[in-house]
Amino acid sequence: MTDSLNTYLQDAQPRQLAELQEWLRIPSISTLAEHRPDVKQAATWLMAQMRQAGLDNVELIETATQPMVYADWLHAGPDKPTVLIYGHFDVQPVDPLPLWTTPPFEPTVRGENLYARGASDDKGQTFLHVKAVEALLQTRGALPVNVKFLVEGEEESGSRAIRQYVPAHAAKLAAAVALISDSHILAPGQPAILYGLRGMWTAEVTVTTADHDLHSGSYGGAIHNANQALAELLAQLHDAQGRITVPGFYDEVRVLSAEERSNLARLPYGEAEILAESGAPTAYGEPEYSVVERTGARPTLEINGMWGGFIGEGFKTVIPCQAHAKISCRLVPYQDPARIADLVTRHLEQLAPPTVKVEVLSTRGGGYAFLTPYDAPAIQAAARAYGRVFAKEPVYTLEGGGIPVVNVLQETLHVPVVLMGFGLPDDNLHAPNEKFYLPNFYRGIRTSIAFLDEMAGTDTQG
Amino acid sequence: MTDSLNTYLQDAQPRQLAELQEWLRIPSISTLAEHRPDVKQAATWLMAQMRQAGLDNVELIETATQPMVYADWLHAGPDKPTVLIYGHFDVQPVDPLPLWTTPPFEPTVRGENLYARGASDDKGQTFLHVKAVEALLQTRGALPVNVKFLVEGEEESGSRAIRQYVPAHAAKLAAAVALISDSHILAPGQPAILYGLRGMWTAEVTVTTADHDLHSGSYGGAIHNANQALAELLAQLHDAQGRITVPGFYDEVRVLSAEERSNLARLPYGEAEILAESGAPTAYGEPEYSVVERTGARPTLEINGMWGGFIGEGFKTVIPCQAHAKISCRLVPYQDPARIADLVTRHLEQLAPPTVKVEVLSTRGGGYAFLTPYDAPAIQAAARAYGRVFAKEPVYTLEGGGIPVVNVLQETLHVPVVLMGFGLPDDNLHAPNEKFYLPNFYRGIRTSIAFLDEMAGTDTQG
Repeated sequence: MTDSLNTYLQDAQPRQLAELQEWLRIPSISTLAEHRPDVKQAATWLMAQMRQAGLDNVELIETATQPMVYADWLHAGPDKPTVLIYGHFDVQPVDPLPLWTTPPFEPTVRGENLYARGASDDKGQTFLHVKAVEALLQTRGALPVNVKFLVEGEEESGSRAIRQYVPAHAAKLAAAVALISDSHILAPGQPAILYGLRGMWTAEVTVTTADHDLHSGSYGGAIHNANQALAELLAQLHDAQGRITVPGFYDEVRVLSAEERSNLARLPYGEAEILAESGAPTAYGEPEYSVVERTGARPTLEINGMWGGFIGEGFKTVIPCQAHAKISCRLVPYQDPARIADLVTRHLEQLAPPTVKVEVLSTRGGGYAFLTPYDAPAIQAAARAYGRVFAKEPVYTLEGGGIPVVNVLQETLHVPVVLMGFGLPDDNLHAPNEKFYLPNFYRGIRTSIAFLDEMAGTDTQG
Repeated sequence: MTDSLNTYLQDAQPRQLAELQEWLRIPSISTLAEHRPDVKQAATWLMAQMRQAGLDNVELIETATQPMVYADWLHAGPDKPTVLIYGHFDVQPVDPLPLWTTPPFEPTVRGENLYARGASDDKGQTFLHVKAVEALLQTRGALPVNVKFLVEGEEESGSRAIRQYVPAHAAKLAAAVALISDSHILAPGQPAILYGLRGMWTAEVTVTTADHDLHSGSYGGAIHNANQALAELLAQLHDAQGRITVPGFYDEVRVLSAEERSNLARLPYGEAEILAESGAPTAYGEPEYSVVERTGARPTLEINGMWGGFIGEGFKTVIPCQAHAKISCRLVPYQDPARIADLVTRHLEQLAPPTVKVEVLSTRGGGYAFLTPYDAPAIQAAARAYGRVFAKEPVYTLEGGGIPVVNVLQETLHVPVVLMGFGLPDDNLHAPNEKFYLPNFYRGIRTSIAFLDEMAGTDTQG
C-alpha cells in the first residue's frame, strides 16, 4: 500500500470506530415488528455513509418485508472485473437482556473489543467494506475494480426479499465474484476462507397405526403403538457406526481429495474440541472421517423433533394412533435435495410393516450445498489479500450450516462466492455480549482493499 | 326363590327405578371441585337408602378428598361367610354436553334403557346390591350371609382415600369374599365373570447425549442426536413379531392351561372385532397368542408418550441433547412390578452406546395383576347365581386394564375378588349417552340375591 493510504487508514481509525458505533446504536432487529422503523433507519444511515464514501446510485430498495440498500462504483472500466459485496444491517434479538454487561445498543469498547448487538454480525463486517471503498476513493480517487453493494435488512428473519430481488435483477447485479464477510476466522492472527457450506432438506414424518388413540388396557399387545412404530422406523436410518442406511444416499457425495483431507486435518478442531463444546461423552458418526469432515463435508440425517402420545404431566395409558418426527438432512456437494427426498421417502415406505402407514412431507424446497473450489482465482485473490494484511496464509474451512443468500447468489448470478470473514469464534453471535475484535475491524478494511487490488491484478503496493 | 320374594321383586320394580333415577339426578362428578357438595349429597342419599333397606352401622367416612359410605348387616352368625360389597357413587364428567340426547343428570328411560351419567358406572350397579339386601330383609327378615358395604366417592378421580382406609381398617372390613359390580357382560343374555385384570408398571425414560441442544449445522454428523438415540433404544425392546426382548421379561408369566385357552377361544372377540374398533390395518403382536390372550393374558411394553427436540410449528435445525419417553408395562400374573422395573432399566442401560446416558424413573408403585382362578368357590358361587337368573352359564373373561381398588382389596384383605358385572359393552361409559339396560338392573338384583344365597351354601329356592 502507498504511504498516503497507510497514513489515511491510520488517521481514520477513531472516526471509523465512532461511525460504526453510531450505526450499532440503531436497534435494527428484523424479526420484531416494533423495530421495523429501526431497520429502515439502519438502511438510510448506511446510504448516507455510502454517499460520503463516494459510491454512486445509492438506492433504497423497498420490499414487502424489510428494505435493502444498493450502491455501486463502476468507473474502473469494462476490462476490470466487478466485485459484488453483500452484507446485512439487521440484527438478532437481544434476549436475555440481563446477561449483557453493557446494553446491546450502547456500543462499548472494553479492551480490544467493541461490544454491541450487530458488532460482528454483520454491521461491523459490512461496514469495513464501505470504509475500504472510501479510503481508496479518498486517497487514489478511484477503485481498482468495479464494485456493487447489495445489503439486506432481513438476514436474521429469512432473507425473503433478496431471494426474489436477485433473480429479478440479475443484469443489474452481474459480477465476476461475490464477496461476503459474515463468518469468522480461526483466531485473531489466523485468517480463514470458508469454501463450503452444507445444503439442507427437511421433512415431517407421520406414522399412523389406528384411526384413534386407544386404551392400552384394552388394546395393548394387539395393536401397534405409533410411538413404537416411529421409533422402529427411525432407528433403521443409521447403522451402529452412524452411517446413513438409506440406499443411494451417499451416491452423489463429493469425494474429498487427499490434499483437501490433509488440509482439513491441520485445522485446530477435533474430538477434544467438539466434546468440550457439546458436553457429549464421546463423539458420534462415521469412523472413517474426522470430526471436521463429518460436520463439514459429510451429509447427515437428523431427527430434529419427535413426538407422539401423552407428553404432559402425569401419565395416560394411551396407545397413540399417530406419531411424528421432523427430520432434516444436511447435504453436501453434489447431492440433490429432491433426490434425497425421494430416497428417504421410499426407504421409509419400504421399511414400514403392514401395521403402519408412513407419510413423508417435505417442508421446504431444500438447498444445495455450496462449494467454491479453493483453487478458484477469486479464492486465491482472497488468500493473497489475507496473507498481505495478516502476514499469515489463510486456512480453508468448511461449515456444516448453510447461508441462504449464498445459494441465491451462486445459483442466480452464477458467480463464485468468496466467504472472507473477520469475526472470531467467541464473538457471541446471537447471544448476549456480542462483540467485534477491533484490530480485525481495521485489518478487515485493509484486507478488503487488498482483495480489490488483487482482483484487479493491479497490486499497487510499493 | 320363594313366591313372596318373586312377588316382592316384581312389585318393587317401579319404585326401584324411581329411586335410582333420584340418585342419578345428583351430579356427583368427583374430578370437578365445584361438584364436591354433590358427591357428598350422593353419599348421604345412599346412606338413607341403606337405612331404609335395613342395614346397620350406616356411616359417612369423611376423608381429605371425597367421602365414603360404610354399612353392614352381621346377624347371619359367625358360621356364615361375610361378603364385602364395593361400589362407587361418583361419576365421570359429562363433556361434550351437546352430544347427549337427554341431559346427563335428567335420567330418562328410552326403550329398555335408562340414560344418565352414572346409570351403569357405577350407581346402577352399586344400587342393585342395596336393593337385593332390602328385598331379602323385607321378605325373609334376614340375609343368608353377613354383608358389609364399602362405597367410595372418588373412583373416577384416583381412589385415594380408599387406598389408605382399607389397610387401616382391615379388621372392620374382614370378609370371605369381595364382590364388585363395575364391569360388563358380553351381551344382554350372556353373563360374564371377569377373572383377571392386568397389572401395571410405568416409568419415564430420559436419554441424554450432550449438555445442551446443538446446532445441526455445526455438530450434525459428529454428536449423537438424542431423538435418534431414544428411537434406537426403544426400537430394540420388541422383536419384529411384537415379542418383548427384555431378557427375563416373560420368566414369571403365568402359563395358560389348555382348558383356559379353549374357553378364551370361545369368546366372540378376535381380529375382526379389534380391527373394526381401532381402525388399524392389521393386528399386531405375538403370533402364538390370540387377540383375547394378547390383550388379557400377555404382558405388554408400550410407549405412551415420546418427545424431544423442536416440536412446534415450523422448523428448527436442532440436535436435541435430551429426549423422553413415558413407557408402561401391562403385567400379568405372576410378574412382579419391581422386578420388571429392574429388568427394563438394566436392559436399557446395557443397550445404551457410549454416546448415550439413559435414565429410567419408575413413576408409580406399580400394581400386580389380578387373578381369581375360576375354580375358586366364590367364583363358582357367582357362576351358579348367574346361571339361575340368566338361565345361561357365564363365560370367563380377562380384561387388559386394571381396577385399582381390586388390588387394594386383594392385597390388603387377602380375599378373592368376584367381578360380577351387569353392564353391557355399549353402555357408553365415560362418554355421552351413558345408559343402563334396565332388564339387567332387575336381573342384577336377583343375581345378587342368588349370590348371597349361594355363598351361604343355603339355597332357599323352593
